[in-house]
Amino acid sequence: MAGNSFGNLFKLVTYGESHGLAIGGVIEGCPPGIKIDFEKIQFELNRRKPGQSSITTQRKEDDEVEFLSGIFDGKTTGTPIGFIIRNKDQKPRDYEHIKDVYRPSHADFTYDQKYGFRDYRGGGRASARETACRVVAGALAKQFLKDIQITAYVSAVGEIELENQKTEIDFSQIEKNPVRCPDPKTAEKMEAYIKEIRKEGDTVGGVITCVIENVPSGLGEPVFDKLHAQLAKAMLSINAVKGFEYGSGFSGSKMRGSQHNDLFDSSGKTKTNFSGGIQGGISNGMPIYFKVAFKPVATLMQKQQTIDKNFHQVEMQGRGRHDPCVVPRAVPIVEAMAALVIADFILLQNSINF
Amino acid sequence: MAGNSFGNLFKLVTYGESHGLAIGGVIEGCPPGIKIDFEKIQFELNRRKPGQSSITTQRKEDDEVEFLSGIFDGKTTGTPIGFIIRNKDQKPRDYEHIKDVYRPSHADFTYDQKYGFRDYRGGGRASARETACRVVAGALAKQFLKDIQITAYVSAVGEIELENQKTEIDFSQIEKNPVRCPDPKTAEKMEAYIKEIRKEGDTVGGVITCVIENVPSGLGEPVFDKLHAQLAKAMLSINAVKGFEYGSGFSGSKMRGSQHNDLFDSSGKTKTNFSGGIQGGISNGMPIYFKVAFKPVATLMQKQQTIDKNFHQVEMQGRGRHDPCVVPRAVPIVEAMAALVIADFILLQNSINF
Amino acid sequence: MAGNSFGNLFKLVTYGESHGLAIGGVIEGCPPGIKIDFEKIQFELNRRKPGQSSITTQRKEDDEVEFLSGIFDGKTTGTPIGFIIRNKDQKPRDYEHIKDVYRPSHADFTYDQKYGFRDYRGGGRASARETACRVVAGALAKQFLKDIQITAYVSAVGEIELENQKTEIDFSQIEKNPVRCPDPKTAEKMEAYIKEIRKEGDTVGGVITCVIENVPSGLGEPVFDKLHAQLAKAMLSINAVKGFEYGSGFSGSKMRGSQHNDLFDSSGKTKTNFSGGIQGGISNGMPIYFKVAFKPVATLMQKQQTIDKNFHQVEMQGRGRHDPCVVPRAVPIVEAMAALVIADFILLQNSINF
Amino acid sequence: MAGNSFGNLFKLVTYGESHGLAIGGVIEGCPPGIKIDFEKIQFELNRRKPGQSSITTQRKEDDEVEFLSGIFDGKTTGTPIGFIIRNKDQKPRDYEHIKDVYRPSHADFTYDQKYGFRDYRGGGRASARETACRVVAGALAKQFLKDIQITAYVSAVGEIELENQKTEIDFSQIEKNPVRCPDPKTAEKMEAYIKEIRKEGDTVGGVITCVIENVPSGLGEPVFDKLHAQLAKAMLSINAVKGFEYGSGFSGSKMRGSQHNDLFDSSGKTKTNFSGGIQGGISNGMPIYFKVAFKPVATLMQKQQTIDKNFHQVEMQGRGRHDPCVVPRAVPIVEAMAALVIADFILLQNSINF
Repeated sequence: MAGNSFGNLFKLVTYGESHGLAIGGVIEGCPPGIKIDFEKIQFELNRRKPGQSSITTQRKEDDEVEFLSGIFDGKTTGTPIGFIIRNKDQKPRDYEHIKDVYRPSHADFTYDQKYGFRDYRGGGRASARETACRVVAGALAKQFLKDIQITAYVSAVGEIELENQKTEIDFSQIEKNPVRCPDPKTAEKMEAYIKEIRKEGDTVGGVITCVIENVPSGLGEPVFDKLHAQLAKAMLSINAVKGFEYGSGFSGSKMRGSQHNDLFDSSGKTKTNFSGGIQGGISNGMPIYFKVAFKPVATLMQKQQTIDKNFHQVEMQGRGRHDPCVVPRAVPIVEAMAALVIADFILLQNSINF
Repeated sequence: MAGNSFGNLFKLVTYGESHGLAIGGVIEGCPPGIKIDFEKIQFELNRRKPGQSSITTQRKEDDEVEFLSGIFDGKTTGTPIGFIIRNKDQKPRDYEHIKDVYRPSHADFTYDQKYGFRDYRGGGRASARETACRVVAGALAKQFLKDIQITAYVSAVGEIELENQKTEIDFSQIEKNPVRCPDPKTAEKMEAYIKEIRKEGDTVGGVITCVIENVPSGLGEPVFDKLHAQLAKAMLSINAVKGFEYGSGFSGSKMRGSQHNDLFDSSGKTKTNFSGGIQGGISNGMPIYFKVAFKPVATLMQKQQTIDKNFHQVEMQGRGRHDPCVVPRAVPIVEAMAALVIADFILLQNSINF
Repeated sequence: MAGNSFGNLFKLVTYGESHGLAIGGVIEGCPPGIKIDFEKIQFELNRRKPGQSSITTQRKEDDEVEFLSGIFDGKTTGTPIGFIIRNKDQKPRDYEHIKDVYRPSHADFTYDQKYGFRDYRGGGRASARETACRVVAGALAKQFLKDIQITAYVSAVGEIELENQKTEIDFSQIEKNPVRCPDPKTAEKMEAYIKEIRKEGDTVGGVITCVIENVPSGLGEPVFDKLHAQLAKAMLSINAVKGFEYGSGFSGSKMRGSQHNDLFDSSGKTKTNFSGGIQGGISNGMPIYFKVAFKPVATLMQKQQTIDKNFHQVEMQGRGRHDPCVVPRAVPIVEAMAALVIADFILLQNSINF
Repeated sequence: MAGNSFGNLFKLVTYGESHGLAIGGVIEGCPPGIKIDFEKIQFELNRRKPGQSSITTQRKEDDEVEFLSGIFDGKTTGTPIGFIIRNKDQKPRDYEHIKDVYRPSHADFTYDQKYGFRDYRGGGRASARETACRVVAGALAKQFLKDIQITAYVSAVGEIELENQKTEIDFSQIEKNPVRCPDPKTAEKMEAYIKEIRKEGDTVGGVITCVIENVPSGLGEPVFDKLHAQLAKAMLSINAVKGFEYGSGFSGSKMRGSQHNDLFDSSGKTKTNFSGGIQGGISNGMPIYFKVAFKPVATLMQKQQTIDKNFHQVEMQGRGRHDPCVVPRAVPIVEAMAALVIADFILLQNSINF
């Protein structure tokens, strides 16, 4: 209720501040008997971790996860899976200068308004460091979902957009460049642009596209828990996300019904897929795809005016180690949240299958 | 869990099929002692109801709500508020021709896949008729929220967009035209376009913008239940919605941090509001605003190819009475869902205020 | 959250005050395709309804349930089942004399303390009339559970206890007497005692025993949602209930482990069943049995001292039509709540069965 | 949903097996700004921990809790409080002899039935070791509830009962003897009896009484989430509990209304308290009291017949280090669960206090 858990049957609760002792979580409801490949989990964590390439923050966190329960002889037992990631590269001193300052477009002011005071070390609970726990849970969910492919990639960095998005995406290219854009040429441009932005002490936003293939039909619940409504919530819960669209999305609002309707072929599939694999909130077996918009990171390596706790104007400049563009590292987070949503709806749908 | 309830503390559960005996709902958690203005509730229902103008479906539903409990001497009692709206203008015969047919881009196929069979009368549970119950609950929530203004309006119909969206919006114009667009000239164009579309037996999508003013700071929960994440879910749960963005939204993904950061003034407000009134998932006291994209209605008054239950190709044409464009009637639904979200977060935040 | 719903996947929410327009509820999560026998539902309601025999209140309520949704062609559709029971025999005047009075051992004082005011007509939301909705939902759950037998009966009225409770219970006798005690001789004594109590304008408590047979093993969740913990909550949520014990119960606390342990036979069953069919919170396939203690009804046809809203002492006497002993009519309520618990755990367990 | 979390707003989720790496939990929803006394938390853990006296198991667990998040500068921050207790005195070899054996009246058989296999080391998730996490959370809840006193004590061991339970209880005596019985003479008898039982390799059950004083009126929710219903669930969720009664309890079922009704005095208090401080599920400001029945521990230091996984009869004898009577160590667990219930209802009630 207090906002730290996600899901109904396949459920994650997370805890931890970016500069506390540790972050961690508990995964409840994972079915028993799933064989766990720990390397795959670490692989996903590594895709998210800071310092992984020249275009990310140079902060170093090993992000090593320790599983504490719920796994026995390499398989899930059906009981809750507790895990912990110790915070090692804490430099609280990096944050002392913001102790009494509200950084612009950060959560400093709002946490203070909500709770009466805040853990100012690196954003505390509001830090995107928390998403490492989501990646752990999502990587585990993926192992449960083994026949379903969830693939996210960067489709825009600032004004640079991946073209021909609906065709010719070669997923095998995604991990071959630090931006995680499946088109090598666009990836190069994006990388160069991010480096340029960083030199200026500035940051830039971007867009991630996600495709989920091989989803069984019938997932999603009517009315309030539509499959895409839960995906939207999952994505908007990720730090810095400002928008979500699935299928035809915002461009669909400009179309006519006669263009937009997805006609069936004789196998029950649809010839087009403006519906994005979901009709009436329930999966129809076609690929699900959606886009997630990220704002530019708020911490700049430039001087900015802001206020302190007494609402006095002060000047500040970001210190520490920050990302000029968050989308390359957010790709595994988007996948993780998508995996949690799908896993949850599979259990829900399974509950009425007799 | 099965998708028919919304909210944590201020909670709505709905039931009912479009052509069953009735639709209705139960509102749980409304604080006691709220004086109810029943005319205001009916006013909101009338804004949503079919047949209200020449550009909506001519189906006639009085949409009269009967409150059954939870209100005594005109005030809420703290106990659950049950309500019912009888379905009067049922013409199940209008739907017999689709009994064995899966309409394109409807939920017919997916409900069948999910439940093994379906109530084919007018979409059954998947019908947007269900949203009348949301409007009832939202209208009640608005009375609880009295100092908070929630205002939605149509900002695009197909390609016709309202310009200058961030300034000069005159909310008093919204109800003065059947499209619910606050700019009279744009409204006229939109109305003409919708009529043209209808003549062709076609439909068109659109966009609704919503502004929430006078929101106290501190609403929203960290991590998974961010204020905007719950708003996104609420909006995506509305029939035909394909996308959601708040604050700078998708266009924010193209911006640099140095442009996008909202600097504070000396009163704790921000000079710009790209954040859309929410930082780190928690309201900062600035106006909240977001956009919701609606796809074109799937029922066309044109012939379409589709398949029946045996996956044989058949030809069908929409009958009955349908909307050429759903956005004018969806305005009160967007407001209602926003009201439910805000009311819920107010109770959640109040729970820890000692 | 506000207390009016029960269950996780198979879920009931109820609404309604005893002397409002109606009571009703919504059943969410009932699997699709269950054929509904409406007469069986009415039969259960008749077992609970007032005026059914000479030892119950003579208040007349038809308790006719109208189903509004979620059932099509006689079968559940998977969508929520809304239902309503109109209140017909309202005599609000019967309650005007208690408008400003707190009746002893009623909920008048506490509702006022909680909500700031109360619906004084017949106990409002605190009235046991609400349990009619539970009986509807329970009767429906029983039809889903068809192979599982849930049987409750009266095992004590005041000091008169049914002997030999663990053996020789002939369930076919339960409905043959108005007390619902399976032993005809004890039933006669109980009936005579209740009549005597009523003549004195007094009331008396009692105990109901419930047996659930043919439960599959594996139901119940570890730790907090143990099968018996949820049964306890379900039973204690029934008006007037003061205690719950399952298996050996309170008498088990006096036993030694060497007596109490249930040894297995070679079929995996246990030779004794002090565990009451549940070990570690999870069903083991043996019959589940438990006892529920009911206090005497608080409304007496005798003069009592009490206080009014200003804490002045006043004298009052119950009017209207009340039960001298609540247990005969509570038998179907106990069964209904048990059915809801079992149905919910079956769905939960089914969710992880792949 | 999968049973490992408790509470709605003040919420605990726990994880961990008795012989895994660690147990732990996450407390969500604790209001911000509560000053934490860590010694008091350790004190409660020490009351529960094994090896604390000559009448408990001699297993040694330090039960040192490490808090990982949610506390900053000694105060709660409003964000989730993660904590971990490492398992140090693991002797998995003590359990190898039961790897393929279902111990009588343990959860071995039922976990296997539920999940298809089990973590056999010391009961795994079904072990009462999990309750250490509840004690941590309860001790923290107590610090939030500072004006409310929650006191539990042993009121029966086997047939030896504490007399005069409703009067003359001197709470200051409870911690002065290893049994935690407030009457020194009865405590001595109980201690001697437990030692005798242990010598025989046997075990015995007992009863714990709990009193909650200074509870504000208005706590508890109507209908399904009655204060006593949630207390019942909380207590029945503790390992080995077989029964719960509050106020007059089972003996109330034998009383007449004219005896049982609690008449008000002119201050709004009641002259008697058969209601146990709760009317209609809502606290009335009088002390809440209830009893919890515990069965004898199932692990005996005697030979017992049982079956293995192939349903073959085998002979087994408990090894390792076990309690002859669980109630002395269960006293802090009962208090902890009571504290969690009260804290949760305080937040719930606070949510509607405007």
